[in-house]
Amino acid sequence: MSTDSFIEGVHFTPSIFSPYNIGYKALASALSDIAASAGKPTWYFLNLGIKKNQTRKEINDIFRGLQYLERKYSVKLLGGDTARSPFLFLSITVGGTAKKPITRCGAKKGDKIYLTGNIGGAIFGFIALQKKIKSTITKYHLTPEIRCEEALKLNRKYRINSMIDISDGLLIDSNHISEESGKKLNINLKEIPICPECKKFAEKYSLDLKENILTSGEEFELLFTSPDNIKEKFAHKIGYVSSGKGVYIDGKLTPPRGYRHFE
Amino acid sequence: MSTDSFIEGVHFTPSIFSPYNIGYKALASALSDIAASAGKPTWYFLNLGIKKNQTRKEINDIFRGLQYLERKYSVKLLGGDTARSPFLFLSITVGGTAKKPITRCGAKKGDKIYLTGNIGGAIFGFIALQKKIKSTITKYHLTPEIRCEEALKLNRKYRINSMIDISDGLLIDSNHISEESGKKLNINLKEIPICPECKKFAEKYSLDLKENILTSGEEFELLFTSPDNIKEKFAHKIGYVSSGKGVYIDGKLTPPRGYRHFE
Repeated sequence: MSTDSFIEGVHFTPSIFSPYNIGYKALASALSDIAASAGKPTWYFLNLGIKKNQTRKEINDIFRGLQYLERKYSVKLLGGDTARSPFLFLSITVGGTAKKPITRCGAKKGDKIYLTGNIGGAIFGFIALQKKIKSTITKYHLTPEIRCEEALKLNRKYRINSMIDISDGLLIDSNHISEESGKKLNINLKEIPICPECKKFAEKYSLDLKENILTSGEEFELLFTSPDNIKEKFAHKIGYVSSGKGVYIDGKLTPPRGYRHFE
Repeated sequence: MSTDSFIEGVHFTPSIFSPYNIGYKALASALSDIAASAGKPTWYFLNLGIKKNQTRKEINDIFRGLQYLERKYSVKLLGGDTARSPFLFLSITVGGTAKKPITRCGAKKGDKIYLTGNIGGAIFGFIALQKKIKSTITKYHLTPEIRCEEALKLNRKYRINSMIDISDGLLIDSNHISEESGKKLNINLKEIPICPECKKFAEKYSLDLKENILTSGEEFELLFTSPDNIKEKFAHKIGYVSSGKGVYIDGKLTPPRGYRHFE
């Protein structure tokens, strides 16, 4: 089980997010936490806080966003609570099943570090939306893909010692694995798979590619460690685990930084 | 399982509720839903939205309120999510076990209708708080008792055909039983047990006793129906179930009214 809140003014702005996007991303974010344990999400509960001026259409559109993912992943809405609220929010509690759940604390010396898919879309998509630049990369921020099937496949075919989604950012979440496993994570910057459109976007608008890639939150790609050579198109080797502590990017100790709710 | 939100400006005002009271009442309200099914609550998940200016002491005090009920009912906080929020809120998802859960849809013709405890404290306590009148009845609004043990005892000793807590108000919630059971509920106004201090308070300040008693929300007493003569100090017979539909107060059809989030 896992629970997650998606709050107006904190996780999303209604001027950027359509009601459909709000429903989609709130549930995506909750489901991703189950994926990150190699679980199969099966049900969820929804706490919905609705503003006074919210129209019936907007509420229906929020549910369309939720229902898209319900159908895609065969997840059932089992119940919930709806209340008037000064701000729009969704708290989602999701449950799933896992034969052999994977945690953040099992990374072993000698493991290789992998990342599913390309990253950067969440942050550069957000920048495009904020700057009102029309770009296809906005979809990575608004309706990100999650990695439910990939996580199950990995867990079935390989030995996966630790896994996490990088929804707090690659740097913060690799530090979670490092701390909870008591190991040193060595990551090669140039091996981090970056979405090609995002690279172009960063170049065009002179944005710091490295900093944004390391700290971009709300990415739902999975970071995992395994002693095996993972032969899947979606899995990219980006480093290795050794004894020690901390996360080293290109050999340099790099403390966690990025968005945090409470500094 | 059940889930409930407790939202600043909707369910509580910080000028009236201390942080301790906020924690207490948020969990009380969630646990009461399990009690109303004659379940034993065992665990909960918490989604906490915290404002920027919230102090560490305030947050600790919210948790003191939660912990009081955790200990009293042996409920464990299993996990949750904490996020910055423009307003304070708690969404609580609670789980419990029940050998024979009771629903709202089982009321039978000939059942007697009962209410646990005295009601009125939630609304008159709220009026006292709002009018800044010092009174012992404010505790019924701030830290209401819930009926976990009573519900379990009833379910063990008697045939309970339907049950609900009257957190939406006696009138709205008796209509829930009526509608979902497809039966007519006949309630005698003078048999409704009213907290004696509240009666005095209503008289002193010339408040409409009947209207307030029928519509007072956030009461956590249990309304239930049974063919048995319930011999418990806390259970008060207030009417009977017959075939037909609707709720009749002193023989008069009385449609639901009271606080609703969405009119």
